[in-house]
Amino acid sequence: MTFEVTILGCGAATPTSKHAPTAQVVNVHDKLFLVDCGEGTQMQLRRNKIKFQKIQHIFISHLHGDHYLGLVGLISSLHLLGKKSDLHIYGPAALNDLIQLNLKVSQTYLEYELHFHPIETDEKMRIYEDRTMEVYTFPLKHRIPCYGYQFVEKEKSPKVRKDVIKEFDLQPSQILALKKGVSVEALGKTITTEFACFPKEVSKSYSFCSDTMYWETLVPFIEKSTMLYHESTFLESEKLRAKQTFHSTAKQAATIAQKAEVEKLVIGHYSSRYNNDEDFLTEAKTVFENVQLANEGLTFKV
Amino acid sequence: MTFEVTILGCGAATPTSKHAPTAQVVNVHDKLFLVDCGEGTQMQLRRNKIKFQKIQHIFISHLHGDHYLGLVGLISSLHLLGKKSDLHIYGPAALNDLIQLNLKVSQTYLEYELHFHPIETDEKMRIYEDRTMEVYTFPLKHRIPCYGYQFVEKEKSPKVRKDVIKEFDLQPSQILALKKGVSVEALGKTITTEFACFPKEVSKSYSFCSDTMYWETLVPFIEKSTMLYHESTFLESEKLRAKQTFHSTAKQAATIAQKAEVEKLVIGHYSSRYNNDEDFLTEAKTVFENVQLANEGLTFKV
Repeated sequence: MTFEVTILGCGAATPTSKHAPTAQVVNVHDKLFLVDCGEGTQMQLRRNKIKFQKIQHIFISHLHGDHYLGLVGLISSLHLLGKKSDLHIYGPAALNDLIQLNLKVSQTYLEYELHFHPIETDEKMRIYEDRTMEVYTFPLKHRIPCYGYQFVEKEKSPKVRKDVIKEFDLQPSQILALKKGVSVEALGKTITTEFACFPKEVSKSYSFCSDTMYWETLVPFIEKSTMLYHESTFLESEKLRAKQTFHSTAKQAATIAQKAEVEKLVIGHYSSRYNNDEDFLTEAKTVFENVQLANEGLTFKV
Repeated sequence: MTFEVTILGCGAATPTSKHAPTAQVVNVHDKLFLVDCGEGTQMQLRRNKIKFQKIQHIFISHLHGDHYLGLVGLISSLHLLGKKSDLHIYGPAALNDLIQLNLKVSQTYLEYELHFHPIETDEKMRIYEDRTMEVYTFPLKHRIPCYGYQFVEKEKSPKVRKDVIKEFDLQPSQILALKKGVSVEALGKTITTEFACFPKEVSKSYSFCSDTMYWETLVPFIEKSTMLYHESTFLESEKLRAKQTFHSTAKQAATIAQKAEVEKLVIGHYSSRYNNDEDFLTEAKTVFENVQLANEGLTFKV
């Protein structure tokens, strides 16, 4: 099953010709979720040939311009492009005021339903669920209220082996029981889930931590994630500046990854003051080996 | 003296990979004026190596997203890049509400003074003046209030020829009189401005007409402009759609140029439905010969 993240932008607040501001598309089983929506996100979607209409849920981490200024343009383009299905937006409450004021001044009357879900929480909470996955939010530590998001596959029931079904003439009710871990009797034998089923597929998870200072409180929220995106605005040489601006260094991002025992780490949100993104990789690797650099257009498998 | 217009974006409302939304930089005697500021304008400024800090005046035509959604990002970047000098923004009053709400939610406290000049007028009026030029605004006819802008060089006094000054031993007060068109007596002769001065440099003007339907009321506002930018969202084949959406066709833009007796016409704001911009040129040329197509990165001398 598809579970991957495409980077549309991984720059920081001031514009550069190298990076776009933050935006990512998370594809979970072919459902597309947009996470943050910096200025120019709709152009980045076009460039990456991602269908606008497939996006039904948008999650905004916080109200600094480089994370939300592309949202109104996208909302408006979806309208112009004929969207009819609902759009769900999750983010700090004031984001809805911004959206509504923009729609009002431009006299735009959306042809689709826009549902706004205000986010305000001190702890981790589930904000979305469907048949196969869930989305959680949790606080980050930034200059203004800021939230991370976590995408989690639901545990899948194990598949019963066809050869066992045939050999023991298993009935639908018995197959269902085995999938749930309950042993059944067939042809005078006790059939266990372990015997009859393929090993369970592991449920994967992706945690997105946009703008945050080094904050160990975060660790339990993202523990054992299959993949973690953690901002890395500065290098250790600007550690003080990182703290003052409520951002992290590459080493700090890697330390959080290590403490949370995630499988792999992706870093981004590079300050425009640095010329060579590779320096972030080198620094992060001193603490955590399995780390990769975000870059526009890259897709990471979770 | 420099007087030129650089196109940062000339697409219409829905995003394409070919065109950016509307934005232009008007350079009058090395003062830079930004006209409209669609999403991504700050990236376009970077791409075109135009110094952000040189922009002190921004004029917004109307509050459709493709004409203003890049403004808050630019305001914020100017702040982050250390701007200290004042910034003047001209546009419909509600634009200021949008700016202030964005600054509030992002808790941005600008390090420079932002002066907002609300525009609301039924007639042509002067909104800016300095030693060498003036800016006027005038109404356009669109679905929501929309304004054009006109940049006009002031009339320059003629230069007195050095050989005449020497031959007739002209004094400063006499030179000044001649520049003003007043004849003087010298060495027993009457010296006229026509005799003593080089021919006057012609004052040039640039008129910007973003989003408008075909509207002849516009003609006197832009009469005899050296250069006119007029939107051309559609071709004549979609003339009805143009009218319904308060836009113009290429032929209509050319007709306005012809009626206003401008010297040259630049067209843009191409709808994303068309693949070949050249079709706009061909259609416009059936009515007005001296026409050029706007395109990102192009600079037109006024």
